Amino acid sequence: MRSNNVYQQGLDKNPANFVALSPLSFIERSAKVYPDRLAVIYGERRQTWAQTYTRCRQLASALQARGIGEGDTVAVMLPNVPAMLEAHFGVPMSGAVLNTLNTRLDGEAIAFMLQHGEAKVLLVDSEFASVVDKALSLLGDKRPYVIEVEDALAPEGKYLGDTDYESFIAAGQPDFAWQLPADEWDAIALNYTSGTTGNPKGVVTHHRGAYLNAANNVLSWQIPHHAVYLWTLPMFHCNGWCFPWTMALIAGTSVCLRRVDPALIYPLIREHHITHLCGAPIVFSMLIHAPATLREGITHTIQGLVAGAAPPAAVIEGCENAGIHITHVYGLTEVYGPAAVCAPQESWAGLPIAERARLNSRQGVPYPLQQAVAVLDPETLQPVPADGTTMGEIFFRGNVVMKGYLKNPAATQAAFAGGWFHTGDLAVMHPDGYAQIKDRSKDIIISGGENISSIEVEDVLHRHPAVMLAAVVAQPDEKWGEVPCAFIELKADAQASAQDIIDFCRSHMARFKVPKQVVFCKLPKTSTGKIQKFVLREQVKSNANT
Amino acid sequence: MRSNNVYQQGLDKNPANFVALSPLSFIERSAKVYPDRLAVIYGERRQTWAQTYTRCRQLASALQARGIGEGDTVAVMLPNVPAMLEAHFGVPMSGAVLNTLNTRLDGEAIAFMLQHGEAKVLLVDSEFASVVDKALSLLGDKRPYVIEVEDALAPEGKYLGDTDYESFIAAGQPDFAWQLPADEWDAIALNYTSGTTGNPKGVVTHHRGAYLNAANNVLSWQIPHHAVYLWTLPMFHCNGWCFPWTMALIAGTSVCLRRVDPALIYPLIREHHITHLCGAPIVFSMLIHAPATLREGITHTIQGLVAGAAPPAAVIEGCENAGIHITHVYGLTEVYGPAAVCAPQESWAGLPIAERARLNSRQGVPYPLQQAVAVLDPETLQPVPADGTTMGEIFFRGNVVMKGYLKNPAATQAAFAGGWFHTGDLAVMHPDGYAQIKDRSKDIIISGGENISSIEVEDVLHRHPAVMLAAVVAQPDEKWGEVPCAFIELKADAQASAQDIIDFCRSHMARFKVPKQVVFCKLPKTSTGKIQKFVLREQVKSNANT
Repeated sequence: MRSNNVYQQGLDKNPANFVALSPLSFIERSAKVYPDRLAVIYGERRQTWAQTYTRCRQLASALQARGIGEGDTVAVMLPNVPAMLEAHFGVPMSGAVLNTLNTRLDGEAIAFMLQHGEAKVLLVDSEFASVVDKALSLLGDKRPYVIEVEDALAPEGKYLGDTDYESFIAAGQPDFAWQLPADEWDAIALNYTSGTTGNPKGVVTHHRGAYLNAANNVLSWQIPHHAVYLWTLPMFHCNGWCFPWTMALIAGTSVCLRRVDPALIYPLIREHHITHLCGAPIVFSMLIHAPATLREGITHTIQGLVAGAAPPAAVIEGCENAGIHITHVYGLTEVYGPAAVCAPQESWAGLPIAERARLNSRQGVPYPLQQAVAVLDPETLQPVPADGTTMGEIFFRGNVVMKGYLKNPAATQAAFAGGWFHTGDLAVMHPDGYAQIKDRSKDIIISGGENISSIEVEDVLHRHPAVMLAAVVAQPDEKWGEVPCAFIELKADAQASAQDIIDFCRSHMARFKVPKQVVFCKLPKTSTGKIQKFVLREQVKSNANT
Repeated sequence: MRSNNVYQQGLDKNPANFVALSPLSFIERSAKVYPDRLAVIYGERRQTWAQTYTRCRQLASALQARGIGEGDTVAVMLPNVPAMLEAHFGVPMSGAVLNTLNTRLDGEAIAFMLQHGEAKVLLVDSEFASVVDKALSLLGDKRPYVIEVEDALAPEGKYLGDTDYESFIAAGQPDFAWQLPADEWDAIALNYTSGTTGNPKGVVTHHRGAYLNAANNVLSWQIPHHAVYLWTLPMFHCNGWCFPWTMALIAGTSVCLRRVDPALIYPLIREHHITHLCGAPIVFSMLIHAPATLREGITHTIQGLVAGAAPPAAVIEGCENAGIHITHVYGLTEVYGPAAVCAPQESWAGLPIAERARLNSRQGVPYPLQQAVAVLDPETLQPVPADGTTMGEIFFRGNVVMKGYLKNPAATQAAFAGGWFHTGDLAVMHPDGYAQIKDRSKDIIISGGENISSIEVEDVLHRHPAVMLAAVVAQPDEKWGEVPCAFIELKADAQASAQDIIDFCRSHMARFKVPKQVVFCKLPKTSTGKIQKFVLREQVKSNANT
């Protein structure tokens, strides 16, 4: 800095011109400007922004009254119910960090997370009572204070609460004077990565990033004010991609939902005129394969944000026919959910569906408020040529990147080595500046010294008319080291033999890439619809051993 | 901070997860993602985002080659031409601060600003040659390096340049590796307030605020990607309300324009399908009073953002009939232009036009990314009752508030006293949380001990069918101290006598508020369409003295 820089003199930050960026500001504004608009719809329940803000303040106040504050963790094991949405505001308003637990995990995993995250309070829904009961018994006297979120729509389960949610918040002050974080870099949430190997890592995100990515969703997806959003995406997954905060920013309506089921979804779309929803490709696949009678009377276009895996052409085409306009986004827990988008270009509009699907299946470019998405040589951190073929790794850089992994300096340092966040996703950069994943590092199949991208093989399999979903993993092979093994879920009423599939592959790819084995089955999926390849790998390994 | 806060340990900022917020990032992204989309249209000129970014990098590089960098000032005296837009990126990319000069000022004022702002470089357009020539002669050997922006569409004028703009940037590197500011709190722009009394004050804004307010424009006004924006608002006015940066954020097209004239504007709207434009009420007044033939063939709705004064009912109604959808925003140079919006409520849609106009004439609520707009008692800084009648002052707080006034610590301290930015605008707070200006402190007329809001009287005058524009100022009066004096500009072909006007007022307001004198004239206006009340006050004073 030059000593004579007049712009550095007497022009300091003060409370009038500098305020911590936090998505908590959004709910305060919506409650003031649009107090009577609906914030939440759930079953018969209707809740305005003013009511929701009051309940969040009560939650924060009640937590503080229990001694919860800065640096404390409040965990939640909840489906997409109103209390889950309220926790996204009430918990950080108390100064604490929100830890949303993956409701599909088992007791051991939950116990690990509660212990590692040092949760002092746990909100729980009876649907997960047995898992949580197990986790709590493992924790023994380190058991957190448990708040039971009662819900008439929930299945029965053992009551685990030290108190119930409504009683708990009823004791809180409706006009509680919560404070913004002292620093926008303060933690807002803790999310454990799914951890296909080893112990899960606790991704810590901050208020600044949550604020910016909540706005990013609006800026990138052009969400109008007062959109009506259906919660097909679990809020425990990267804080619902920041959408609880996004909905507060645009004073939209959240339609809550315990379970992704077309028989529940279509009536909600019809009744509430849903405009936006998010999910993995499987969510959209379910929607487009649902009986046509379910869709009767729905004439408006629905905007769908898809991530978790590139949407296959069949999904893109099926959505078009079903009146769902798909936008493909890409991210990871470490970047708050999606932080890249396959931004559509005007010139694509007139292309044939296959070509559009190919273009839209790419991971794309940074969100408007994310700094950079790059495909770099993981050794040199230099960009690979933008030729669409040279393989590199995807890296993120910007304000929508986590603080790091909780109590894991080694993993944090490795993740940020060289000033970039390492995703572990292998990709190419196309000449138009769009990144495209070719594989997760661990998903590459090395056969006779040649790299085979399992995604490339899966892309071909998805084009087979009988295939609903396909996953390809490495199968140990004495001669080649590894060979591709395909797991296939067929469409309802569709038929195909292993030989049909292999023949189809032979006519669409190099011989060495063709799966040597084809297994028909229902594919194992995570709660967010990602195929659990590690389960398939285990299966292949145990088959090889027998 | 608790010493055992696990969220503060090993989770520090690093280059992967923390980047200075700066609107310069927006142009880099648009140039990469939408390289071939049009960024600029001006006369016959067409310039893509890739080309524009290259030219901005050349400008930054050429400035650095002249030794310009952090803490230096680059002034511009330019109409809304492409170079003006480029300066909004190229100047801060060099590390310098952009000082946009009000092109309606005289040589003395310009000389003051160049000297006070310590400008090292000045870009100038021949239209302002004589004023700049005068200013430069006043500066003597403190004259900055002058770059002449040549323009075939400009009127002739004395060539003042030490070089010309195209030669200057041609020497810059097209791939110049500019840097983001070291700190997002660094200055990006210097804007002198119009200074109706005393020396103008230099408002210093920062990268963080410019970034956030550029996004605010999109979030508040719901601007779609690739909007086509017509530059009816001077870019020298609060950096065009941050719209040069907003257009980079949404990869829109800026249609440049030297002069606000319906005969130029309507053909541009027709040819380029303009979707958005901004301006003072007078801009919209001109558009709706233009001959109908000019508007032929324009069938799409245009979004208009209006500020500078509350839009009179006649303007709101006229715009509706002319296919222009108005949104009323409010701000000052100190908050980067508009930072409050009269956010429309769904329930207003069905109301009669007079009622809608009344509701829309209010200054409203904070922008989504501005923290707070409040009406406070200026003594106690406590909120006035939200009763729509108790007078207070409007205050802003948030990240879209200036760093302060350049080299003016006393004014800076006064502006921020008590942790709020003092606007000097007197207002009430309505029960629905919308602020409404009743007057500038200095515009209050005190008559027989009663306060008369000049705005309230003007509102009534604007409802008279013959009145195009009205302004009311205090006229010294022996008996009452002050009485209201009305200056009126009639609509083309409309007629009214002073007595007509007075009679109309008598039937619409308390007797003591009725203007004692009515003057028909063309009202003096600033370049941004604000009525120059100080000129009228001078006139009243000199009339009183003669």
